[in-house]
Formats: sequence, structure tokens, C-alpha cells
Amino acid sequence: MFSAEPELSANSVITYEDMEPVELDPGDTKPLFNVDYVGDAVLFSGMSGDDDIPGIGQYDDFHTIDWQRDIARDRMRHRYIVKKRQDSIWDLIKGAHDAWSGWVCVLLVGVCTGIVAGVIDIGASWMTDLKFGICPQAFWLNREQCCWSDTDTTFDTGNCSQWLTWPEVLGGQRQGPGAYIISYLFYIVWALVFAALSASLVRMFAPYACGSGIPEIKTILSGFIIRGYLGKWTLIIKVVGLILSVSSGLSLGKEGPMVHIASCLGNILSYLFPKYGRNEAKKREILSAAAAAGVSVAFGAPIGGVLFSLEEVSYYFPLKTLWRSFFCALIAAFILRSINPFGNEHSVLFFVEYNKPWIFFELIPFVGLGIIGGCIATIFIKANIFWCRYRKFSKLGQYPVTEVLVVTLVTAIIAYPNPYTRMNTSELIYLLFNQCGISNSDPLCDYNRNFTDVNSAIEKAAAGPGVYHAIWLLVLALILKLVMTIFTFGIKVPCGLFIPSLALGAIAGRIVGIGVEQLAYNYPKVWLFSGECSTGDDCITPGLYAMVGAAAVLGGVTRMTVSLVVIMFELTGGVRYIVPLMAAAMASKWVGDALGRQGIYDAHIALNGYPFLDSKDEFQHTSLAADVMQPKRNETLSVITQDSMTVDDVETLLKETEHNGYPVVVSKESQYLVGFVLRRDLNLAIANARRTMEGITGQTIVIFAGTGNQPLSPPPCLMLNRILDMAPITVTDQTPMETVVDMFRKLGLRQTLVTHNGRLLGVITKKDVLRHVKQMDNEDPNSVLFN
Amino acid sequence: MFSAEPELSANSVITYEDMEPVELDPGDTKPLFNVDYVGDAVLFSGMSGDDDIPGIGQYDDFHTIDWQRDIARDRMRHRYIVKKRQDSIWDLIKGAHDAWSGWVCVLLVGVCTGIVAGVIDIGASWMTDLKFGICPQAFWLNREQCCWSDTDTTFDTGNCSQWLTWPEVLGGQRQGPGAYIISYLFYIVWALVFAALSASLVRMFAPYACGSGIPEIKTILSGFIIRGYLGKWTLIIKVVGLILSVSSGLSLGKEGPMVHIASCLGNILSYLFPKYGRNEAKKREILSAAAAAGVSVAFGAPIGGVLFSLEEVSYYFPLKTLWRSFFCALIAAFILRSINPFGNEHSVLFFVEYNKPWIFFELIPFVGLGIIGGCIATIFIKANIFWCRYRKFSKLGQYPVTEVLVVTLVTAIIAYPNPYTRMNTSELIYLLFNQCGISNSDPLCDYNRNFTDVNSAIEKAAAGPGVYHAIWLLVLALILKLVMTIFTFGIKVPCGLFIPSLALGAIAGRIVGIGVEQLAYNYPKVWLFSGECSTGDDCITPGLYAMVGAAAVLGGVTRMTVSLVVIMFELTGGVRYIVPLMAAAMASKWVGDALGRQGIYDAHIALNGYPFLDSKDEFQHTSLAADVMQPKRNETLSVITQDSMTVDDVETLLKETEHNGYPVVVSKESQYLVGFVLRRDLNLAIANARRTMEGITGQTIVIFAGTGNQPLSPPPCLMLNRILDMAPITVTDQTPMETVVDMFRKLGLRQTLVTHNGRLLGVITKKDVLRHVKQMDNEDPNSVLFN
Repeated sequence: MFSAEPELSANSVITYEDMEPVELDPGDTKPLFNVDYVGDAVLFSGMSGDDDIPGIGQYDDFHTIDWQRDIARDRMRHRYIVKKRQDSIWDLIKGAHDAWSGWVCVLLVGVCTGIVAGVIDIGASWMTDLKFGICPQAFWLNREQCCWSDTDTTFDTGNCSQWLTWPEVLGGQRQGPGAYIISYLFYIVWALVFAALSASLVRMFAPYACGSGIPEIKTILSGFIIRGYLGKWTLIIKVVGLILSVSSGLSLGKEGPMVHIASCLGNILSYLFPKYGRNEAKKREILSAAAAAGVSVAFGAPIGGVLFSLEEVSYYFPLKTLWRSFFCALIAAFILRSINPFGNEHSVLFFVEYNKPWIFFELIPFVGLGIIGGCIATIFIKANIFWCRYRKFSKLGQYPVTEVLVVTLVTAIIAYPNPYTRMNTSELIYLLFNQCGISNSDPLCDYNRNFTDVNSAIEKAAAGPGVYHAIWLLVLALILKLVMTIFTFGIKVPCGLFIPSLALGAIAGRIVGIGVEQLAYNYPKVWLFSGECSTGDDCITPGLYAMVGAAAVLGGVTRMTVSLVVIMFELTGGVRYIVPLMAAAMASKWVGDALGRQGIYDAHIALNGYPFLDSKDEFQHTSLAADVMQPKRNETLSVITQDSMTVDDVETLLKETEHNGYPVVVSKESQYLVGFVLRRDLNLAIANARRTMEGITGQTIVIFAGTGNQPLSPPPCLMLNRILDMAPITVTDQTPMETVVDMFRKLGLRQTLVTHNGRLLGVITKKDVLRHVKQMDNEDPNSVLFN
Repeated sequence: MFSAEPELSANSVITYEDMEPVELDPGDTKPLFNVDYVGDAVLFSGMSGDDDIPGIGQYDDFHTIDWQRDIARDRMRHRYIVKKRQDSIWDLIKGAHDAWSGWVCVLLVGVCTGIVAGVIDIGASWMTDLKFGICPQAFWLNREQCCWSDTDTTFDTGNCSQWLTWPEVLGGQRQGPGAYIISYLFYIVWALVFAALSASLVRMFAPYACGSGIPEIKTILSGFIIRGYLGKWTLIIKVVGLILSVSSGLSLGKEGPMVHIASCLGNILSYLFPKYGRNEAKKREILSAAAAAGVSVAFGAPIGGVLFSLEEVSYYFPLKTLWRSFFCALIAAFILRSINPFGNEHSVLFFVEYNKPWIFFELIPFVGLGIIGGCIATIFIKANIFWCRYRKFSKLGQYPVTEVLVVTLVTAIIAYPNPYTRMNTSELIYLLFNQCGISNSDPLCDYNRNFTDVNSAIEKAAAGPGVYHAIWLLVLALILKLVMTIFTFGIKVPCGLFIPSLALGAIAGRIVGIGVEQLAYNYPKVWLFSGECSTGDDCITPGLYAMVGAAAVLGGVTRMTVSLVVIMFELTGGVRYIVPLMAAAMASKWVGDALGRQGIYDAHIALNGYPFLDSKDEFQHTSLAADVMQPKRNETLSVITQDSMTVDDVETLLKETEHNGYPVVVSKESQYLVGFVLRRDLNLAIANARRTMEGITGQTIVIFAGTGNQPLSPPPCLMLNRILDMAPITVTDQTPMETVVDMFRKLGLRQTLVTHNGRLLGVITKKDVLRHVKQMDNEDPNSVLFN
């Protein structure tokens, strides 16, 4: 449109284009939509990675990003490169580099995520075993690796002669009360040391490294800026702290933080590619892929990871990203498998293989497990949120390290005596998922049966005393784990809750499973069991119930659906059990939704007041745009006129108000909307004009000229049409808020202008929308964190 | 807003509310956004399933739907039900029924899809075998079932004494040249009979039943109305025709049409639930789930089905739908597995189990296979589109049945002599995917090796003469299948191309695989092979290459990505082979994209001119809304003024123009936008007013009054503010088209109004957008099919 009016800039009017861009970067302040390729040189410098121009495509901390604007910037950049590509070989190479950079970036993210996950797995495994003993000949080996070199065949009990427990290191016995006390003490001391280290590191170097990080990543992906949350210090401290906190025996998992770690890697690596590093909207494509890779390495579940990213954390997820996320997740899983930190052959974390398929009537206990899981999850969420709110608003929040130490001490003291809480939680889950075969010597498998052969069918049998004893221990473990996890999730160390949730569900499921199994054994003639259980073979597999229960609790806590089922299926390799898993997940989600609206992540988002506009919640109210817009009745809207305000007027307005942008109208009287200008651009443009142009005084008229007409005022005047966005998104005052909310979500708006019969009435910003949603849900609208 | 101004309707002004709704349904013509609960009674009648009110929420044939409007209608209905729920037990039950209806509907769709898929599988299997012979004792059994009752152990060759081939039925020999000729003739005659029946049924009863249906379903899901395309006749004829055409031995598959069949079921069953049946936008949620169920039963791949629906066919896919689609797909797969039409134990279609994992260097041939697959796919797409275009614009299109018969005759004559084309394509794929074990007696496995035991490792061996002979036959089969599929896809019988594509790729892959295997056997010392292939065991599995090749060609043809890999993985149960599959799929897609922009479905959409606005294609051009809007320069925009036109004026405008809607402005001079009114509503409202109200003449002023002010003209006047949409979506004339296209896609718009400084300049409809996209891509903008 500028080229159509050459007489305008050829006039004596000083236009913005004539100015020399010194501090002000035209690549940033150029009009966002209505230029063609005028900013070539600047785009070029932006592309080649100059860092000396401040503020390119950057936002301030705790601001929301403008998706439309960022994506438009990227398309402009892309068009420029495509056009430039024909000029020289070098430009062609740069074009190819640009086209590939998305793939190269996710490849790097995948590789790094895989390697870091391997490091964490190896470190956590070694340090977890360090609580129990050491491998004197090679202290860097964990118990399993230490015993590989041993010829003992007694590995099942985890004790081989190479591996020395702490009492043995001190010259004592492996068994006996003295040894028990020494082991107990060592266990507690190591746990405290690890936890203290972890908490101190987090407190000193990277406060953002605590927690699981998933609520924050959801918020960041929805278009919010939290500086440093995905930075290198957070990454380093989170990795080290995670190894320490997992090893300390606290009731937490490393799976959620893995998503945060992968996202940090995604953020850091995206800076190698200006296309992504300098564009917040594009960067979120990489972060989505990284989140998928995080889940992929956490569970060895690449498909589940992609679905998790799609369903749970991502906001803007174009289909192109789906394919790239899958690639990233797969590479990460592949690298981790090549590192093979656990040294087992199966690619899945909890590989299970059951002899018997499930029977149709078992859907009843499975749905029952789903209901139990939903209840456990709701108790957990409510109690955890209550405690976190207490921590937030009380003195407790000022002593994070002390809190960590107290929780660790209590956990260690209570956990050690019970073998099911003493062992690694992953091992516990694996034990509970397994069916009782010939090689399983745990008390849980103390049935009155004889095995004739490894491959023979498992006969139906009565539970022995070991099973009943184990059940009591498991009930205690369930209560302990539930209580400790409530207090643990939210303390200031890296901690996730996938594994604790799975463990809670697995315990409950196993108990129910043993119950059903014994029912079927004792009453084989009841019509329910008579079909399948009348032969001598065992027809009920308690391990399957553990798996279903685990899915139920995890589903209730996180409210994942498809991704949960796919993760469980990839986690266990049990392709036949999708239907039971799905039945339990559905029941659990429904119970959870009925008892409490939010999953744990959404609850933490609400608790922390993150400005997250959930794309899953439907806006149910009947308010109109006119009810939500600023200014309210009796206030006036701050506007700029297109051709009648002086520089002084504009500067006064900038001083007196704090809006991030101002609508430009034809005149104060008519209020017909011309466009929208950002505060930041205005400030920069006026400061620059004052410095570089002659004849700019406070009385100079500022012109955001519209199309065609000569400016009404005589020169000198300051033409600022290049910083005017002439295509702001508008709605009418009668538009229902559900449509407005939909537009904010789907178009990624930062603000929209409200008009009536063409006249400007007000502005709705994302902050206004979020506050309105809170208000409608009877929550405090001022709790939203925002700048 | 109406309740705020009671004096308005209490005046002598005749408002629309006062009228008795006789033919006109206020539930449909009520203002879409700015009412609260005024339409209760009508909403209620709409809810209880009255069918006598014509046109509720319906669109004309070949129109696009207005997603915003439909979703708003549904939210209003939902709010009404929630509000009503507290009134009585009956309303509570109705509310619960409404809340559950989505799940019940997809449950029904899943169950029906599973059953229909079972019927098709059983029918097609029986009729395919009928070409070769019959089971005289029980003619309804296919060969496999017939031989089950037999004690012969020679099942491998497919011949048992119970099963009589046609020469035997006629009293002749099973072997010998005479028997061969008789079998050949019977094969051809049966094929012609089946094909003729299928084509005639389609031609006579349901022309929409031909083809795969996926391009049309993509278009329908994107918000287009094609009446009858998902109707009951289409369903019945498609099922019967599909069984016949698959049995006729044509080079086609039943997987694509299964998606169409499931969508028909989804459409028909949605009418049981007014929430979905009467709301085109909501109905598409069910159709998305049905499409997932279709793929799920076609391949036994529920997760792949959901991803296919998400990635390939769906358009509007809220996350709630993801979970429901998964449920639907799972139920369908579960029902089909319970029917167990193939009688085998594995739940996957082509269960494979290879002894050896793949080796890292094999990624090179896998990527090579991807490139080959991409080339084959491109040849197929280009040739098929060329032929379909020729058919469309030449006389050939007038003789569909003759064309089918000719293609069938040629296929049958050429296919019979070659055992690999004679056999069922699914069997061929299974054979090619398999590794050569001890039980495999096909010439493809004629290696110079001895098996000592079923469980022993397979030794490396030189290929025998049988393998070389088989390779030649496979090359011939590849050429034949490629050529015949080009001519077959698009003829007027139900036909899909998943299975033919898989077969093409599997043949190419197996040939490459045997080549690599023999290279490794003959040059075991070459550094590539020396690591893994230096022992005596076989290190290369040609069956894996067939699998990878199949994925490559299918990926190249359809341009599926994640869903392809997941389907292949579920299809074969090969969890270890995701990386090779992914490598090949990526290579194939890139080659395909480089050689020809579109996948087969998009190419067919373009060929048929369906109004499909692809959500994956980015709009790359720099045009502005002002360039696209109607009217162009020198034309005038048809508008209605808010309070100065008479009934006659409006009726003249309706007669003289054919727009689907008219903007309402303050006055012709100012052109400030007030709202938007639909042609259909205007017509109905005026006709109704003339019939039911006194004092309505041609001179009566029509008022679409804005807010607040008294109408300017004296009574009598016709208040039509209830049919005015006061919240139309607007953009400014300077908005770049990429933003406009984005808004059309994401908000599902039917039209948007273009303004400049508040004044109305023009309208952009979806048709304008589609034509502009075509024009920018240098295609004929008038080829878009639209009313």
C-alpha cells in the first residue's frame, strides 16, 4: 500500500522510513501485516544471528505472546528466504538450512534428551543402591552391575558376595539385629544427605528447578513468558537435583521432571536456530516436541509421549508438529535404549506377560478399580492442594530446606521397616505387575501350588500365609505412600508424581486382584466364575489388576485419557489389555471429574495463578463482550487519533496510562477505528525521532495516516504509519464471550478491540478474559499472575 | 438485551416475537448470539425430536456449514438443559440422557461398525474362495472353514479333500491342463459376475457408493454438505458392492471403503440423538469417531485409527472427541475380534515375528526403500489422476459398468496365471511379510538350508532356484498390480487402495530384501556386514524389508505420517521396528512431496473440485483482504439498512441478488456495519409476517433496530431484530489473507465482513477464499464445486 502512494513520502512530510534506524530496530517495529519486503536488510541481519540489536521478537517477563504476530513474522521471514534463494548458491544453502532447521533441532533435542535421561537413570540407580551398600572393587557400579561379575546364582534376592552392605563394609554381619540397625541408620543418613544437597542446590542456584514443572510448561506453551524457567541453570540443577531427590527415597518420581528437562533442552537448543530461538510462537513447536521426548524417555513410550504432548501440555499443535514430535520422541527413546541404563533386554519399563487373557466379567472389578482409583486420586489432589496452599500462605514456605529434610526424615524412618516401601518404587511396581511364576520368590507369590515346568499353566491355588502377610504390608505401604506423596509433591526439590501415582494404584489393584482370585478359587461354581474358572488353571491374574489400578490412579490424578492408555500399553507391552485399561481410565476420570473439577496440574496452575486459558474447558456463561471490555462504564478509553495529536499529547498519554497498546481512531468524536499501535513501538519511535530528526518538537503532529488522503495538518509532522497495525482483530459489543474466548484460544490473540456500528467502544485483553473466567467460576479474579 | 428494553416490545411496534410461529421455526431463525433463553419452547421441541418442523439446523445441498453458529446453537441448547434439569425428575433424566448421548452414540457406532466389518470379512472371504471351488457339504463355508472339519494335514497348500475345486465339481481332475483351463474359465466368469453385480448395484441404487469415499469424507468433515453421501442406501449398497468387488479379484482393498461405511453408520445413528443429528457441527464429532472406527476395524488398529482420523480426515477435532474416538475405535475392534471372522488367534492382521532385530546399517536400504516407495507412489498418483481426469471429461465416463467389466476381465485374465496375483492380496502381503521358517513351503523360501528344529536359529543360506523364479513372478506382479490399480482406483465400484499400495510396497521391499540378504551371504567380509553377519546365522530378514516397503508406498500414496507408522506397528505387532518404519515413511513422504505436491486423496479432492480448505497447507501469498472481497471495484455491495428499507425494497433485493446473506448497515451513505442477516431467515420472516400479521404491506418499514434508541419511523413497522446476527466476524481491508484464511480454518467461518475505519467495504465468503487459493496456485478458480 505504500508503493501505491509515492507522493506521500516524497512530500515534505518526514516519514518514519527516512529515519536512520539506530537503536530502534525496524525489523521489530515495522507494521506487522501491511508491508511487503521492505525490511529485507533487517530480516537478513535477524536471520544471520546478530545479537546486538536488543529486543527482536522478545517479550517482557510474565507477558503473553501474540501468536498471530509471531507467526506472521515467521511467514514474512520464510517468504523472504524463498525469494532470496534464487539469488546465489550461498542463499540457496541458507534456504536449505532454514528448511531443515526444524528437523535438525528436534533431532538434537531427541539425542540430548536420550543422553540426559541415560545419565539420570544411571546416576539415580547407583545412588539409590548407595543407601544400602557399595561395590568395593568398583565403587561406580550399582548392585546389579556389581553382581553381574559375580558367579553367584542368588541374584534374585539382590545379594551377591561382590556387593557389600554397609554393615559388612564396617566389618559386621549381613544379617542380625545389629546389622539391621546399622543399615537403617545408613539408609536414613544417606537419604538426608541426598535430600539436603538437592534442596540446597535448588535454593541456591535455580529456584525454578523444583517440582515437576508440568504446570509451568503448560502455561509457557499456552503463550506465556517465564524467563529462566527453561534456562541452562534450571537444566543443570534439575538434572543433579533430580538424581539426588530420587535417590533419597522420597515418594516421588523422575518422570514429570523429565518433561521439564527435555523442555529446557528444547529451549536451549532452539537458540542455535534463529527461526525458532527468536520467535516465541515457533519456539513452542520445538518445546511441544521436547515435551513428547521427555515422556518418551521417562516411560520408553514414544507414541504415548506424542499423545501426552498433544493432549496434556501443548496448546498450539499444528499437524506438522505432530510428525516432528513423533520423530523427536522416537530418537530420544532410541538413544536411551542404545545407552541401555537398566541393562535389560526389554524395551519397555515394566514388561509383563500374562498367561491368561482377561475374561469379560472382569470388566466389573476393573471398573470398580477405576472408581477406587478416582477416589484415591481425588483425595490426593484435594489434600495436596490444601497443603500447598497452606505452605504458600504460611511461614512454612520460608523454610524450604528444613521442610525437605523433615519430610525426608519421616519418609526414611517409616519406609525402611516395610520391604515394599523400602525398595525402589519402580521395582515395587514391577513386582506388583508381575504374575506369580516359577521364578518369583516374593511372599506375594506364596501360593499353595507346585510348579512342574516353566512353561506349564499356573494352577489355581489358595493363598498361603505369605500372601496375607504381604497384603497387610501393602495396605500399610498404600497409606504411607499416599500420605507421604501428599506432603512431598510441592516441596522444593525436583519431584514428579507419575511413579508414586502408579504405585498407589498398583498396590490397590493387586489387593483387589488377590481378592477376586481367591473368590474365584473358593467359589468356582458361582455363575460369574463358572464359565472360565471351572478348570484347574488359574483364571484371575492379580498382576493385571495392579496394572489396571495403576492406570486408574494415574488417570484420576492427571486426567489424561488416550495418552494414559497408550503410555500404559507401551509401558507394559500388553497389547491385549487396552480394553480393561480404557474401562478403568474412563471410570476413574468420570469419578474424578464428579468429585473435583481439576486434575493435579490444572489445580496447581490455578493455585499459582498462572494465566492459562484452558482449551479443554468450555466457557459456559452468557456474558457479552460489552460486559468484559475495558473501560467499564464512566471511564474513558485511552485512544490516539490518527492525525490530530501532538508528540506531547502522545507522550503524556504514555506517561499517564500503562496499557501495552493503544487503539488509533479517526477522531476523538467519531471513534471510528483505524488501527492499533503498541506502547513499546510508540516509545521507541518517538525517542528515535527526537534524536535523529530535526524539527521534532512537542508540538509536532503525529500522523498515523490512513489511506489516500493528504494529511490534514501542515508539515512538519511525524509519520508513524509504519508502526500502525492496520489489521487488528475486532469483535462487536454484542459478541458472546464464548465466541471471544474461542477466538483468543484458537487465534492466540493478545487483545481484541470491541466496536459497535464501527465505533470503538473498548479493548479486551487476555488478562481481562482470564479474570472474567475466574470471576464467572467464583474465584478471585485478582489471583491471576500477569504483567 | 431484550429483557433490558421491555418498552420496545410493549409499544405499538409489531415485533417478531409477537408472531405465531407457524411454518417458521424460531429455533432456527432466532438470533444466533444475542438471546438468552427466549427460545425455550422451541428448543424443547427441537430436543424432544419433533420432525415436523422443516429445516431445523439444516443446510441446502452443497453448502458449507457455519461452525460458529452451530456450536453456539449447541451451547444454548446445553445451557437450556442444564437450567431445566433442576425443574423435575423427568428433566433430570433428559439431562442425563443428553450428557450421555455422545458416548452412547459412539458406542452404537462402534458396535455396528464391528458387526458390519465382520459381515464384510466373512462374505468377502467366502465369495473369494467361490471363484476357486466350493464346499459341497456346507456351501456356506469358505475353504479354510471347510478344511477345518477335515482331518487332512495338507492344509498348507490349501487343498483338502472336503473342498472341491470347480473341475472336481464337474467330475474332472484336480490337476492337469484340462482342469487348469476349467479353473481359469470359472475364475474369469465369477470375477465378471461379481464385478457386474457390484457395478450395476452402485449405478442403479447409490451412485455415491463407489470409490473409497475418503476424499468426500474429508470434504464433509471440513464442513460441507453432500446429501445422501452418508445415507442408508449408500451404506447398504456399499457393503454389498464392496463384498462383490473385493471378491471379483480386482486390484482393490476394502479398507478405505470401511471408513466410508463407518461414517454412514455414524451419520445414520446420529439421528437417534437430536443433539448430534440436528446439528451439523456436532454431527461431525460423531463422524470423526466413526472414521477412526473404520480404520480400526479395517486394520485391527484402534490407536492408528484415531491418529488417522486426527491427522488425515478430521478438521474440527476438539480433544474431547479424541477420547470418544478412541473409545469408538476400541469398541469396534473389540466387537470384530469377538466375531473373529478370520478364525486366527492373533488380533493383528499380519502378525509377524522375526528372530533377528534390525541392524543399524540397514537404515540405508530402508531409506532407499522409502525413496523407491515415494517414486512408485508418485507414478501411481500422477497416472491415476491423469486417467481419472480423462474419464471425467471423455465419453468413457458414460459407460461405468462396461469399464468395470473390461477392467475386471483384463485383471482376471492376467492375474490368474501368476500365483502371486491370483491369491488374495492380503494373503500375498502376509506371505511377503513372513520370514522363511521351517513351515513355509512357498518357493520364496527355497533356500539351501536345513532346519533342525522349529526353535533353532535360521542359518544364512544361498537362495535356490525357487527364489529366483519367485522374484521374476513378483516383478511381473508388481508391474501388473501397479498398472491395474491405476486403472481400478476410480471405477464405479467400492474400492480402496490401502491394500494394493501395501502389496506394491511389500513386493518391492521383499525383492530388495532378498537382494541385501544375498549380498550379505556372498560378501560377509565387507565392512558393512562384517559386524553382525559374520556368524553363521542369517542376519537379514527379507520379510522386514517387505514391511518397510509396504509402509513406504502407502506413506507416499496417502502422505500419512504418524498414523501410518502406528497403523503398521499395530498391523504387524512389530514394536521393535518403529524406527525403520519411520525412516522409510519419512523418506517416502519427502520424495513424494518433492515430486508432486498432493497425496492421492487431496489430488482427488482437487480433481472433483470439492470445496476443501486444507488445514495443513500454509497460505504463502501476500494478498490482502481487500483484494479478495466481493464486490470488486465498480460494483456495489448489496446491503440492507437498519431502519429505512420497506418490505418491498427488501423483497426486490432478495429477488435481484443471490447472496446467502446480507450485511445490515446504519445507512446507505455511511455504511457503518450493524450486523448480518441470512437470506433464508429474511425470506421466512417476511413470508410469515405477511401471513400472520395485519397491517404488513409493501410499504411497511423493516427495522433491524440497534440497541436503545426508539425506531425512527412511525409504526406500523416490522421489527426483525431477532433474526439479525449482531456479532458478525469482521476484518479490516488491510488484513493479510493468511490471517483471513487462518480465521476461516480455525473458527469455521462461512463468511466474514470487510471494513475500513468502521465502514463496510465488502464480504469474503468461503467460496471466495477457496477460489482465491486456487487462483494463487495457478489453478482454475471456477472448478470449485459450490452452491
